[in-house]
Amino acid sequence: MNSVRVPVVEKILNANDQIAGQNRLLLDRAGVFALNLMASPGAGKTSLILKTIEGLSPLFRLGVIEGDTAPVTIDADKVAAAGMPAVQINTGGECHLDAVMVGKALESLSLPDLDLLIIENVGNLICPAAFKLGAHANVLIASIPEGDDKPYKYPNIYRGIEALILNKIDLKPYIHFDQDYFLRGVEMLNPGLKFFPLSCTTGDGLPAWLAWVSEKVHNVKS
Amino acid sequence: MNSVRVPVVEKILNANDQIAGQNRLLLDRAGVFALNLMASPGAGKTSLILKTIEGLSPLFRLGVIEGDTAPVTIDADKVAAAGMPAVQINTGGECHLDAVMVGKALESLSLPDLDLLIIENVGNLICPAAFKLGAHANVLIASIPEGDDKPYKYPNIYRGIEALILNKIDLKPYIHFDQDYFLRGVEMLNPGLKFFPLSCTTGDGLPAWLAWVSEKVHNVKS
Repeated sequence: MNSVRVPVVEKILNANDQIAGQNRLLLDRAGVFALNLMASPGAGKTSLILKTIEGLSPLFRLGVIEGDTAPVTIDADKVAAAGMPAVQINTGGECHLDAVMVGKALESLSLPDLDLLIIENVGNLICPAAFKLGAHANVLIASIPEGDDKPYKYPNIYRGIEALILNKIDLKPYIHFDQDYFLRGVEMLNPGLKFFPLSCTTGDGLPAWLAWVSEKVHNVKS
Repeated sequence: MNSVRVPVVEKILNANDQIAGQNRLLLDRAGVFALNLMASPGAGKTSLILKTIEGLSPLFRLGVIEGDTAPVTIDADKVAAAGMPAVQINTGGECHLDAVMVGKALESLSLPDLDLLIIENVGNLICPAAFKLGAHANVLIASIPEGDDKPYKYPNIYRGIEALILNKIDLKPYIHFDQDYFLRGVEMLNPGLKFFPLSCTTGDGLPAWLAWVSEKVHNVKS
């Protein structure tokens, strides 16, 4: 089956990368810094987005693109309730966002009115890693309950990111998680990666994350 | 892009289902009950397998097929350490097992020497739902830290299962999880689904799961 599929997949990926380039150009022209936020289901993507809105909306104009595999608006509703422009992409069962979907969503946002755009990818540690969207930074959220072996088991997604968040550190007292083992795996795949251990529940560690994002937004503007 | 992809995907799925049928025939002839165990990364697939081995190996002859997207043997090593025949499938980055991969793995197991075969699928709530393997039952493990909204966000995988486990119930005191909301979503998608809330850490709820599996193994034998 692989011999049939590989050429098809390569064609799709090449076409995707071209459109991702066009998306980036649109974002750069408008001076918008875009984040592609990836994670396993339930690691805390929407929670992090809400905390980022809370922390940065006094400083920047934020927008959100919400990727979902089903026509539910649970996450988009939460973001809209926080007063931010939110566009939902329903992938219709597809397991990741791609550059075409994001390109269409960009058309329905007023980019000149934004400084920071967060794209919430579909909850999945495998497929999103292969599809560039045109964002300036790919960010992965890992979480304590997922276990410390994830970099070893899902290496591709750890290789292609600019920052790693380890969420739910408030659960450390109740769950065995060997952070040294976890970070050794990360370092092997992506040496020197920016790392933000934090808790969206308690707020611990959030300031460092918010400072990093702020610096990135300023860099795109300047 | 969808217009290009759909016919290719349909052809692949049809071919897959045929081979899944062949796998099922092999299993039935040998009197082996096979489970396809699916879950999000870190929900506890390997922990449940180890607990099932512990509980049922005095009664039945067990074997395990371990699906991984990377050439790591962390899970296969744990199963082998528990004294069970384990075959590892490295999908080479693919986001799910398929019937061809499982068919090859079946060739390297001595089926007449088994009563129960557990197939650990790749950690993913989306792609594995579309690929039949030939197993007698598809089982999904959800877990408390993933959140109570997963049936609403990943409906396809909830539709195609014969049993649902809710793992990590020992973490309930520390995490907000509305079990009624979760179960309303499940009931909408898959009415009357067998449901096993349990904890692989404390052992709570495991007896009901082990009893269900035992009954299924007996049914295939009789």
